[in-house]
Amino acid sequence: MSSSTPQVITCKAAVAWGAGEALVMEEVEVSPPQPLEIRIKVVSTSLCRSDLSAWESHAIFPRIFGHEASGIVESVGLGVTEFKEGDHVLTVFIGECMTCRQCISGKSNVCQVLGLERKGLMHSDQKTRFSVKGKPIYHYCAVSSFSEYTVVHSGCAVKISPHAPLEKICLLSCGVAAGLGAAWNVADVSKGSTVVIFGLGTVGLSVAQGAKLRGASRIIGVDNNPQKCENAKAFGITEVVDPNSYKEPIAQVIKRITDGGADFSFECVGDTDMITSALQSCCDGWGLTVTLGVPKVKPEMSAHYALFLMGRTLKGSLFGGWKPKSDLPSLVEKYVNKEIQIDDYITHNLPFDDINKAFNLMKEGKCLRCVIHMPR
Amino acid sequence: MSSSTPQVITCKAAVAWGAGEALVMEEVEVSPPQPLEIRIKVVSTSLCRSDLSAWESHAIFPRIFGHEASGIVESVGLGVTEFKEGDHVLTVFIGECMTCRQCISGKSNVCQVLGLERKGLMHSDQKTRFSVKGKPIYHYCAVSSFSEYTVVHSGCAVKISPHAPLEKICLLSCGVAAGLGAAWNVADVSKGSTVVIFGLGTVGLSVAQGAKLRGASRIIGVDNNPQKCENAKAFGITEVVDPNSYKEPIAQVIKRITDGGADFSFECVGDTDMITSALQSCCDGWGLTVTLGVPKVKPEMSAHYALFLMGRTLKGSLFGGWKPKSDLPSLVEKYVNKEIQIDDYITHNLPFDDINKAFNLMKEGKCLRCVIHMPR
Repeated sequence: MSSSTPQVITCKAAVAWGAGEALVMEEVEVSPPQPLEIRIKVVSTSLCRSDLSAWESHAIFPRIFGHEASGIVESVGLGVTEFKEGDHVLTVFIGECMTCRQCISGKSNVCQVLGLERKGLMHSDQKTRFSVKGKPIYHYCAVSSFSEYTVVHSGCAVKISPHAPLEKICLLSCGVAAGLGAAWNVADVSKGSTVVIFGLGTVGLSVAQGAKLRGASRIIGVDNNPQKCENAKAFGITEVVDPNSYKEPIAQVIKRITDGGADFSFECVGDTDMITSALQSCCDGWGLTVTLGVPKVKPEMSAHYALFLMGRTLKGSLFGGWKPKSDLPSLVEKYVNKEIQIDDYITHNLPFDDINKAFNLMKEGKCLRCVIHMPR
Repeated sequence: MSSSTPQVITCKAAVAWGAGEALVMEEVEVSPPQPLEIRIKVVSTSLCRSDLSAWESHAIFPRIFGHEASGIVESVGLGVTEFKEGDHVLTVFIGECMTCRQCISGKSNVCQVLGLERKGLMHSDQKTRFSVKGKPIYHYCAVSSFSEYTVVHSGCAVKISPHAPLEKICLLSCGVAAGLGAAWNVADVSKGSTVVIFGLGTVGLSVAQGAKLRGASRIIGVDNNPQKCENAKAFGITEVVDPNSYKEPIAQVIKRITDGGADFSFECVGDTDMITSALQSCCDGWGLTVTLGVPKVKPEMSAHYALFLMGRTLKGSLFGGWKPKSDLPSLVEKYVNKEIQIDDYITHNLPFDDINKAFNLMKEGKCLRCVIHMPR
């Protein structure tokens, strides 16, 4: 228990008042952390495509987006023993309660208690911790890092080494970790294998880094954005395929150039039709397709049964299979030890006041990650 | 090379002249085995549901069905060194050429050279080895065991111990092996796990046997045929669920009685909607669905992407992942050593002349396996 009782903080937050409308910098009131919660001074936060998609389409407003973030604990709620003021943390959009069937299984990161929060509320009491002049402001993924201060459940934050640079490792809070984990934990990419990656955003290119570090010999990237294709080789992509350059379906192209299909394929776009193409791009016998994307339009994927009967497997990857508390600290160590790279995914650095620029850059496909730096 | 040159054999075969029409016992001419082929005197053959489905719906006629069979080599074609006259064999509907990318991988049984044959012809020359009064009769799965003699590619037969009873182990040529392998090789069912099996025919009940031998603690069978449900417990099923007894969708029932979903689910019906139900019946985090069936109607399966994102996996199982030549002899040994059981799947024994009774019994859902005994 903290020695002094935390009070309401008034600070700046970027509030989304309606779908697709420019965020507005508002003075928001941030409640003290409730039992088992912590309040964090956000240091760096990056814009992820799911923020953009939710901002463009979801019905929950007004809302504070942002879920890929690093920060420093400002105060802790009743019963919190794991964190203390001053601890460096990463936020996570899927928590780890350590007590549910999923958490205690040791083989899953799909926590039943602190899983993906979709209503814009806190897990514990289904209320918000933000308000503007008394009007509640909804959360996003129970993180809401587009605010100078935010409150998260202590199960949705991970204590990390104070030596790691917060302005870089915020990318391990979601995108880069999701991609690396999909390649390592979910697919278990093997040395010498052929890999196809659909979608060359940060997640897809992190799959590429993961596959490269595993020694995959061919890493084919599929994207119709020429700019993304151009930069992809720095992350391990060995060749790029733009579907717009072919008349035949993309899966047919991949099967042709890989002599029957790839060993592994990854869907990092968020398009259920692309899941089908990814499955078709895999080889008979042992082809494994991993889907990481969150489809924005058609939520039902479909595929011919024979794709499975002939030996293909389809798996999903939520946050790369990482169990946040158990696994993220060592991933941060890997970055500090230069075993993985993060810096090159950061194509833009912006002050908090320019957050709408980040949304525009991502909408136009002109960035990988824009890191937004909070005022010190 | 055989010392005497094999001649055409004239023998009895059950010929299907049209879809759904009773088979007719005909005098057929069986060609000598061509290079790398063997001619087999069929001893026992059982009726599998895929024979029935193909007979009811496929367009290739006249045809000799049957693919689950045991026999004795009568003669061998040029270049065959693996078999000699008198060898005991099981036929297999997917061969093993030992030289293609799939076979040499060591991790697949989806042979590219001797895979599932769908045109009713022999793999090597796209011709038939049967005729009635000069008119060619098509094959089924390149096996066609509903004939006293048949010709198969030497890669589509497996030499087995002469001590194993041919009239029983013919079931390892397809159905029982397919089910055991799905549980062992494809799903790798673990001790103490909860398993759901959709469809309690021979294949589903062989999955049950496999799961039981692995120490699964709950094995739930789903079938709307009360007779099948009644007999299922002898094979390891611990409880049966008849979807007709519930108003709610079957996946909801399973999730309720398993507190969130099973660890493993198996689709053994051949219905793509059932694949979806099987996926929904699995738990978040690590739920694994294996599909074994060959759908007769709608070949496209569909599923909500979130089923995968929340940690489920969908895999197909062709012949239980067994590599025929490498694996079947030891499976036969397991039967001889009483480590697996086969006998109880044989609900009916019929002389060859009564083969149409077997088709009727299966159509009416009144049998598991009918073994058809050829004249000695």
